[in-house]
This record gives sequence, structure tokens and C-alpha cells, in this order.
Amino acid sequence: MNELSVIPVPAEVYPEPGVVFKLRPDAVIRSDSPSVGAYLADRLRPPTGYALPLAQGPGHGIELLLADAPAGEEEYTLEATAERVTVRARTDAGLFYGVQTLLQLLPSTVEASTVQDGPWTVPGGRIADRPRYAYRAAMLDVSRHFFGVEVLERFVDRLSRYKINVLHLHLSDDQGWRIAVNAWPRLATVGGASQVGGGPGGHYSQEQYAGLVAYAAARHVTLVPEIDMPGHVNAALSAYPELNADGAAPPPYTGVDVGFSTLSVGKEVTYRFARDVLEEIAALTPGPYLHIGGDEAQSTTPEDYVEFMARVQPMVTAAGKTVIGWHQIGPAAREPGRIAQYWGSTDEPDADIRAAIAQGDRVLLSPANRVYLDMKYTPDTPIGLDWAGHVTVRTAYEWNPATLLPGDPDVIGVEAPLWTETVSTPDDIDLLTFPRLPAVAELAWSPQPSRDWPGFRARLAVHGPRWTLLGIAFFESPEIPWQF
Amino acid sequence: MNELSVIPVPAEVYPEPGVVFKLRPDAVIRSDSPSVGAYLADRLRPPTGYALPLAQGPGHGIELLLADAPAGEEEYTLEATAERVTVRARTDAGLFYGVQTLLQLLPSTVEASTVQDGPWTVPGGRIADRPRYAYRAAMLDVSRHFFGVEVLERFVDRLSRYKINVLHLHLSDDQGWRIAVNAWPRLATVGGASQVGGGPGGHYSQEQYAGLVAYAAARHVTLVPEIDMPGHVNAALSAYPELNADGAAPPPYTGVDVGFSTLSVGKEVTYRFARDVLEEIAALTPGPYLHIGGDEAQSTTPEDYVEFMARVQPMVTAAGKTVIGWHQIGPAAREPGRIAQYWGSTDEPDADIRAAIAQGDRVLLSPANRVYLDMKYTPDTPIGLDWAGHVTVRTAYEWNPATLLPGDPDVIGVEAPLWTETVSTPDDIDLLTFPRLPAVAELAWSPQPSRDWPGFRARLAVHGPRWTLLGIAFFESPEIPWQF
Repeated sequence: MNELSVIPVPAEVYPEPGVVFKLRPDAVIRSDSPSVGAYLADRLRPPTGYALPLAQGPGHGIELLLADAPAGEEEYTLEATAERVTVRARTDAGLFYGVQTLLQLLPSTVEASTVQDGPWTVPGGRIADRPRYAYRAAMLDVSRHFFGVEVLERFVDRLSRYKINVLHLHLSDDQGWRIAVNAWPRLATVGGASQVGGGPGGHYSQEQYAGLVAYAAARHVTLVPEIDMPGHVNAALSAYPELNADGAAPPPYTGVDVGFSTLSVGKEVTYRFARDVLEEIAALTPGPYLHIGGDEAQSTTPEDYVEFMARVQPMVTAAGKTVIGWHQIGPAAREPGRIAQYWGSTDEPDADIRAAIAQGDRVLLSPANRVYLDMKYTPDTPIGLDWAGHVTVRTAYEWNPATLLPGDPDVIGVEAPLWTETVSTPDDIDLLTFPRLPAVAELAWSPQPSRDWPGFRARLAVHGPRWTLLGIAFFESPEIPWQF
Repeated sequence: MNELSVIPVPAEVYPEPGVVFKLRPDAVIRSDSPSVGAYLADRLRPPTGYALPLAQGPGHGIELLLADAPAGEEEYTLEATAERVTVRARTDAGLFYGVQTLLQLLPSTVEASTVQDGPWTVPGGRIADRPRYAYRAAMLDVSRHFFGVEVLERFVDRLSRYKINVLHLHLSDDQGWRIAVNAWPRLATVGGASQVGGGPGGHYSQEQYAGLVAYAAARHVTLVPEIDMPGHVNAALSAYPELNADGAAPPPYTGVDVGFSTLSVGKEVTYRFARDVLEEIAALTPGPYLHIGGDEAQSTTPEDYVEFMARVQPMVTAAGKTVIGWHQIGPAAREPGRIAQYWGSTDEPDADIRAAIAQGDRVLLSPANRVYLDMKYTPDTPIGLDWAGHVTVRTAYEWNPATLLPGDPDVIGVEAPLWTETVSTPDDIDLLTFPRLPAVAELAWSPQPSRDWPGFRARLAVHGPRWTLLGIAFFESPEIPWQF
């Protein structure tokens, strides 16, 4: 079995030299999971032109079987013989990840939307695969620049191909509020009508957001909504000036500074606002987490910050969700199960993350100098920032999440955030996300001993033609020996 | 919230000083899980004498709620206020573990089988808890001495109280074959009619075994059956001499030597035997794993061993299960997902486990000098062995599974095996299992930073009265300041 093209690299690969599966026009898909069977058929029918009916019983084709083994929730095995490909898993999620691996084992032309020449071959052999971390994430900042639901759906679809299972949406910031809240309607209509550099901004209706949740769920991606508080709130203040200490509405903000806005911690209206917003967002969220930001609150005193968090975090628990906060939340008393998202450097963990770990917080790793997708690759990258340095593909890939932080924290996973101060088009998203997102995906999924830069570089090269077929405007990094 | 009595120690504990929940006679149990609700009622009704109806709607009492958060498969939160105790989890397993914690927070007299005086109090506060490892196991050798189903059920029940979720049954060895196999009936009737020191031996019918599987499943314990091959097979050879190289039936064996028997690797009948046995055992096993032994095959040549394993391991895969073997299986080619169970010393990992890790095997940790329950506590322990040294409670407790072996293996968990050469009565099982099994349970469940010997020793002391009420003939180790 040729593992060369599979990203993230599977935990175990057993080639069967000389054996090849070749998908025939009469092939069927037999799936114990209707949703994963339909997903596979939707992916395979356009490029092959085959009917690929969803059928029962054995025969030539592809089997997706729910089974007692393998045991893990997202684990799967894949076996390719001359006659059939069989994926086994305990859950739909496991089958979905087996299907992603299968699709990467097929020729790159499988990504085309029109009928291509075959043969549609899969190298014979077996794979046993399972994730290293349960939380494998990307973040998109839709506040600094707004992106419509169709852009987000395309983003989710692409993430899911690399076994990413969480999309964190940064839904509010100084420059724009992006989600409708029925109890506070001006948040979206007024707070949403701005973005960096001017322009109309925008927001998601609750119906649109629910549709995105469902689209993501069909790809085994959980949405984690973030309402950033108590700083990063100029858009909210401009919509509801009573949340501001002086009661005055600031003008909409279209610049790129940070740290200048804060909710008024001393006013009760602030907590009615927080509770209403968090309850409505929680009701839209089947996933277990709500992210409440907490970063760069430079206009909130440390005492006010701790007081604010002591009142707001329990609202998340009361809404049935688990708190995630940027790691500046560390010094604040926590709620059960809290997760601190570390976005500092890999070099010098600060006092806040140390406080979080000392309290027993679980940790989500997003070290800026490794996995911030908004950092430039090189000085020549036309968009992006560089305050955390340049992040090459190799820089994003070559580190070990298990040994990054002191204090033996419980690391739940890795997230690559894409902040959008300089990102205004779908092509901008593509340029900064590919190929670094697949590097992070492998970091979060594959066992540490199975990963190495030469192997990753070679496998990544094979993905160029796929991305071209998908219309992904990726960065053709000179680090990679691209195949075209 | 007083965590003093909870073993394994929860990941997070937030006391609420001054708040106490007191179970009243009119309390109800509201459970989203019928099975866990019924389990809790069965545990609470005898000692309290309360009706504790399973009811819907809010009110005074205990709520067991299925929820989106917390996220992990076995994770739970527990909140105790003056009015009610609420456990939340995503799965029945999570609720079951929350219930175990709740029962340990109640007074020790909750373990009584007759009505006791209250008050039935739970200290106020919150707990957020989740396992460190997914595989938390004990093993019982029912071959050297046979134990009936009722003994096994009691063992399972006790394990489950400490959040152990796997019982590995060593079902075959030189001294006895313990499970009926329809295709090879003399295995049980002849091979099962012996044990160490003479005596009638015994075996489980398939109906009995299926009943045990169901009993364990109701306590979220998965059975992992072991058929030890190609050595440790005198009982099988005495039943079916054609499996022996010379075709002669050896007499039943009642001693305690090892390494003298082997299946004939060159005969086809051996593989018919292995396939029939593994298929029947797999059909009895809803869990994902089959254990095929592979240890101490000193009468099998290394070449024969590798050949045998190359043919037998795929039978496990074909039966839909994942292979587990003792770590001597390391040099043999593996099946996808294979798990090597390490039973060597913590001091000097041997070439076999190194080979397993180099191949990418996942590892289950049972270092003999730490967690072999058949080792004596001290030279004075009336039963037990000492070839791996003496294993005190502290010795069993104070080590870190994450750093035991080189090569960065994927550690799936910890298992404490109880071999029974010197163990012939239920009281013998109790003496060697308690209190070391709770030490291993905490090692496998609790985060490393939350564990320490002084804390464990103090918490363990509170369990003495519980064990006395349950009739557990535990070892009153002088290491522990027992409370009576």
C-alpha cells in the first residue's frame, strides 16, 4: 500500500505488494452508515462517472462497516484487496476518516468535478489508524473580515479532508459582531456592519448558523463559537453604549489595533448581556464547548478581569457547555473542565499559562510562532503579519505538542488560528491555510514516531494537483517538491 | 467537597464549604439512562431503606443527565448542592463513573446490605473528571485455579467501583482449559478437569460466559478473553493429542512449572484448532480485543513461533477483533492495531518489547515488579510469589506509565494481572487484590499531577470500612493508616 499521499500519515501501514484494487463501473458502496455512504458516493460519482449505488450484500466495491473493533471513537481500519476495499470502525466518525484515507489513496483526479479517465486504483494492503489528539482544530476570524456561509462551508469541507474535527469561529471583535442575537438585535445589525478597512461587514442569521452547524456535523466537524470578552468588544459597545463605562457609543472601528475596548465590569447590564448572548449561542451549539475569549484585555484592570470571569464562566456551565478561553484566563478562577488555549511562543510560556496549568486547566495548543496561519511564510508573502516571526511549512510541522509546556498539563489537542486583519478574500484564506493546515493536521492526528519532515514533505508534494483541481489558491512553498 | 475518600482521585475538585446535600426519604432518582439509574437505585435502597423511585422532572434527589458536555466518552461532572446531586455525561459510561464517585462521597455505611442510620450526606461542590487512559484493567487467571461465575461477577463488581473497565480472563493454560468450545468439546470436558494441586477444575459453558459478559457490560467492564498459544497448552494437548508433535496425550498437569508445552506448529490441525477456537470465542465477545497469549513459549523454536503467529494473528483480525499478546509477540509480524502487553520489569525493557515498539505496537503496561497482584506484599504474605520482588501498595502506586518504556510508544493503559498458582479461594483473591488494585486503578485513571502517595494513602484508609461491609478479606497493609 502506497502511503505516500496520505496526510495525516496513518498510524500503521501494511503494504501488500502486487495487489491492486481497481474500482469497476459496476462497483457498489455497501455502508452501515447512510451518511458516510452518501458522502463517499457524492465524492466518487462526478470524477468516475460510475453509478456507485448504495447497496447491501457483498460484491465488488467498497464496504463501510460498523464493527466492535477497532475500539477508539475515531479509529478505523482499511483493507484493500483486488476485489474490494473494506473500512471498519466503531462509529460513523471512524468510517468518515477511513473514507478520507481511501480518497487520498485514489489518483489525484478523484478531486475533479467532471468525469476523468481512470483507472481508479487503490494500492493493496491494510491500514490501522487512530488520532493522537481528540481536538484537532482550525480557527477562522470572521470579525476582522466577514466571510459568507458558502466560504465557511468550503473551509469546513477542506478541513475535514485532513481529519480536522473542530472549527473555532471568532465571531466577535472590535471590528464586527457576526452572529444574530435575538435578545440584543443591534449587535448584528449595527455591530456587524463594519470590518477592517471599511466595507459593509455582515453577520450570520441564526438560521444560517444552524445550517453551518449541520453542514459541519455531516463532515464530523464541531463548531466552537467564540464571543470574545471582556476586551475586543468595540462592535458590541457601538451597538449598545450602555455596555460602555461612559455610556457613550464609540464609532465603528475599521483599524487593526487591539486592547482599547472593554465591557463595563461594574454594570449589571453587562452580565445580562453576557448571559443572554451565551445562552442563545449555546442553544445553537450541539458541541460541548463555548469559547469566551479573554485575551488582550488591556483596558480591563486585572481585578475587573478576574471579577468578570468569575461571573461569566459559570454562565457557560449553566448553559451546559465547557469553557474555553485564551490562556490569559489562567489567573481567573475556573469552571470545571476549563480549557486554556495557549497562543504564546514555544520559547517562553508566560505566567498566565503557568497559572492555568497550576490550576489544572486542560490545554489547547496554538503557539503563535508555530501554528498561527496569519503569520507570513517569508518576508515576501503578500499578506499576513510577522509579529511572531515567519512560519514556514517546516516550522509549523516540526515540534512536539507533548513536550511544549511545563507542568505535565493534559493536552487536548492543537489548533491553527487564522486571524484576518490582512485576509479579505477566499484566495487569501487559501494562501495562508495551504499547505500549513495539513502540517498541523498531521501534528494533531499522527503518532509522533511516525512523523518526520522528509516524509511529510514528500507526501505533501502529491497534494498540489488535488488542490489545483479543487481551486485552492495554495502557497507553492519552495520547501516542497511539488508534483504538477 | 471532601475528596478524601474518592479513588481514583478526580481530575478536578471544587469544594463548596458549608454546603451539604442530604438525601431525604422522599428523594427521587431522575436518570436519562435507565440502566445507570437502576444500578444506583439498587446500590442505595438497601442501606437507606428509602424508596428512591426512578422518576421524571426536577425535585429533591439525584439527577443523572446525558448532555453534550462534558465531551469525553467516559468523562463526567458532578455537582452537589443542598437540594440535589447532578451528574452529567455524554454517555452511560460517564454517568456510571459519576455514580461511583457519588457513592464514594456518601458515608461508608452505604456499602451495607441492610438499613443503616443516616444521615446520607454528600459534601457540596463540584467535580470534573475523566480518565487518563482508555484501558484500565485487571486480569484473573482462572486456569491455574478455577473460579465459578459468581466469584467472577463479584470480582467484576468490585473492579467497576474503581472505574476499571476491562477484565482480562486467562482462560487456558497447562493446568486447565476453562471455556466450552463446541467444535472441540474435549477441551472443556477433559482439558478443564484439572488445576494446580489436583482438584476437579472446571469450565464455563458458553451460556455462563455470555451471562458474565452481560453482567460486566452492565458495569461498563469489557471482557478480554485470552487463549494462550503456542505454549501453555498442556490441557489442550491432553484433550486432543493430535495437536502435540508426537501425537501422544500428556497427562493432566497440576504443578506450577512453565514453558514445557507447545502446539505443533507444523501440523495443519493446529490451525484448524486455532481458527475454530478463536472464531467461537470472538462470537462470544462484544468487546474489541482477543488476547492470544504468546508468552514463555520456551518449547517452541523462535522460527516456529514467528510462523505460528503469522498464521494465527490474522484469524483474530478475520474474526473482527484486535490482537493483544504478551510482549514476547514483539518479534513476530503483526496485525493492524496490535497491542503488546508488557509484563517485564520497570528496570530493563527487553528486546521483545523493544521490537514491538519499533514495529509500532501499542502498549499495555503490566510491569511485574509493580502491578503483578500475585507477588507477595512482604516476605510474610501467606500466599503469592516473589520472583519479581515484593510489591507493596506504595510500589504498585508510585510510578509513571507515561515514562516507563523507551521509543515513545502509544500507551493504551495499565493492567494488574492476578496469576493463581497460589490462589485457590475467593479470600485469596481478595487478599492480593485489595488494596493494590485501587492503587493501579488510580494510576490508570487520574492525571499524573493529581496523584501522590500521601494523598492516596489517606484516601485509601477510608476504604477499609467499606471493604469490611462488603466482606472483602483485604490485606491490612501497615503502610496505610486504616480507619475502622
